[in-house]
Amino acid sequence: MSKLTAGIIVIGDEILSGRTQDTNSNFMSKQLIQAGIKLDEIRVIQDNRDSIIQNILHFHKTYTYVFTTGGIGPTHDDITSESISSAFNEKYCFHPKAFKILEEHYPKGEFNEGRQKMAKMPENAKLIINPLTAAPGFVIKNVYVLPGVPEIMQKMFVSLLRIIEKGSPKKTITLNTNLYESTIAIGLATIQNKYLDCSIGSYPYFNYINKTSGVHIVVSSWSLNNLDNIVEEIKKMILLLGGKSSIV
Amino acid sequence: MSKLTAGIIVIGDEILSGRTQDTNSNFMSKQLIQAGIKLDEIRVIQDNRDSIIQNILHFHKTYTYVFTTGGIGPTHDDITSESISSAFNEKYCFHPKAFKILEEHYPKGEFNEGRQKMAKMPENAKLIINPLTAAPGFVIKNVYVLPGVPEIMQKMFVSLLRIIEKGSPKKTITLNTNLYESTIAIGLATIQNKYLDCSIGSYPYFNYINKTSGVHIVVSSWSLNNLDNIVEEIKKMILLLGGKSSIV
Repeated sequence: MSKLTAGIIVIGDEILSGRTQDTNSNFMSKQLIQAGIKLDEIRVIQDNRDSIIQNILHFHKTYTYVFTTGGIGPTHDDITSESISSAFNEKYCFHPKAFKILEEHYPKGEFNEGRQKMAKMPENAKLIINPLTAAPGFVIKNVYVLPGVPEIMQKMFVSLLRIIEKGSPKKTITLNTNLYESTIAIGLATIQNKYLDCSIGSYPYFNYINKTSGVHIVVSSWSLNNLDNIVEEIKKMILLLGGKSSIV
Repeated sequence: MSKLTAGIIVIGDEILSGRTQDTNSNFMSKQLIQAGIKLDEIRVIQDNRDSIIQNILHFHKTYTYVFTTGGIGPTHDDITSESISSAFNEKYCFHPKAFKILEEHYPKGEFNEGRQKMAKMPENAKLIINPLTAAPGFVIKNVYVLPGVPEIMQKMFVSLLRIIEKGSPKKTITLNTNLYESTIAIGLATIQNKYLDCSIGSYPYFNYINKTSGVHIVVSSWSLNNLDNIVEEIKKMILLLGGKSSIV
């Protein structure tokens, strides 16, 4: 088990209405597993002050790192920064450095009230620099507040991962088999019970175009250095059942 | 506001590890808004008994409908049905009709222990028929338990929506403008404050390939029959600011 855990809070009515497919949390989840940080939960919540406050406080207490995306733009429906300030009883005010970055970014006379709003955050927040569109994210306690636009979020998240404490990446081997999931169910359960410090996941797939189907077996562990024995046992079990297997 | 609310619980380590992009909740969210059911929250949680129980009970008390996806297959890591039985203090046992459906579905001698597991559920559950691969989902109280494989889940969810109580679809009009979000921020906020029974969302976009950018303004309401006045005010505001707008 990694000692470092994470929770993601996706803030945005556009995800809950189906208008936008959230891809940010999938991007982050892949990066986190490589960084040795165990993602335990993702929540998608409304642009609603009470909901943001409640979820932020719960995740803040529960996980090593909390990442939020969405709701830090210039318009009235962007209420993430203000709500997070309230959650931590912090003054919601202009961050001098953020104000300066944005003032210098825009042509003279174009740093309007909407854009100025993007420099407002909890008083003791530290900035997360935005290399694409200038408007920064911020960190307050263990909460990392990022924008929702994927191109911008991704750049900022990758920079962030370089500087925060990381663990050892989760070790993973994926096997493919042509057998049905139900055929290997008992054998897999027996092997799983033998190796409690690894997790064995089983994911059936159907490809309607190629008319192929089978199961991906994902063997993974945060603590074991070597998964080879487990994988060998699974291969043998599949062979005994008359199936084929290969490493994916 | 729709009187009918929903919460989705996506159960699966493969989503949290980044192996699989969850598309089920996006599919459901689009269908729910058309069915007049307000989706308030999505949670992605681990294949972990305590976590499933805790989240099921919370959603059960909070929302009109709870939809879960994932974890009802034949292998050891499919623990959704057993955990939901525990959550509601129900016996986890074979459902006679589910057992019969599956027994008839498989060739003689191939209805093995793994496949039999897919007929186990809370004692008082009612079946949700699966037209593709036979293994049914189930309903217990207000919790609708569906599989994770998108093709199967989608078919079952669409049939489900036909038979549960629905509301009036949310009315939505989307406007496109070439102005920056920050330029329209104050005007939009003023209009939003005037019409509290509608919500005005603002979503900037950047298309790096076509080199186009702008903002989509989504005006929506569960209670208003006519959004035309609001849309006209937004159009006028954009025109006054020297911008263009069109209905998307």
